[in-house]
Amino acid sequence: MPLDTSIAARLKRTPDGLVCAVVQQHDTREVLMVAWMNDDALHETLTTGRAVYWSRSRQQLWRKGDTSGHAQTVVRASLDCDGDAILLEVDQVGAACHTGERTCFLTGGDLGAVNGLEASDG
Amino acid sequence: MPLDTSIAARLKRTPDGLVCAVVQQHDTREVLMVAWMNDDALHETLTTGRAVYWSRSRQQLWRKGDTSGHAQTVVRASLDCDGDAILLEVDQVGAACHTGERTCFLTGGDLGAVNGLEASDG
Repeated sequence: MPLDTSIAARLKRTPDGLVCAVVQQHDTREVLMVAWMNDDALHETLTTGRAVYWSRSRQQLWRKGDTSGHAQTVVRASLDCDGDAILLEVDQVGAACHTGERTCFLTGGDLGAVNGLEASDG
Repeated sequence: MPLDTSIAARLKRTPDGLVCAVVQQHDTREVLMVAWMNDDALHETLTTGRAVYWSRSRQQLWRKGDTSGHAQTVVRASLDCDGDAILLEVDQVGAACHTGERTCFLTGGDLGAVNGLEASDG
């Protein structure tokens, strides 16, 4: 079964047919990772209760957790104002990152930005 | 002054030279929006304490808030594990979305996903 046509009509896809998915732990609100979805991945995500992405490296659907066990149960999915990004609130089993870190941003780490709030305190 | 070479070397850019930026309110942890950065935008963001993006529609640097007043003060920037997404924690003045909504995902709204947590309760 394909993606609901009223949703499909609202998406603004990349030339590769993808929208960006920001994945957030629903209760702690940690941003866990960013992934990509094609229409099939979004359809499965919306209808099965489990997060499914498009793997750009493997060029196939990626049912997160199938190999790692680190599945994501879907709580809510929201589209952004221009239709090219989805906020996916999930319950993450274990680590979101393939490295074993809880989030992919803990793996990459802090870029040492000037903190504008502290700077304006001075 | 260009982007720090040690950071530039870690980025995995789109063919257009961009990385994805997920923007989160630092205290409430709301995901406010998704935007894009080229090297110059990231450099300004990291060094000035203010969020700067690349506007794909206007093809120019976008110092958020210059026209709307809804600027974002940078608190922290983190790179993800594969270098193609940045988590930008900010303090948002007013609305993040150009529609006047607090977040771009409130504007687009709920896609009616099956809630996998509720489904598994039954």
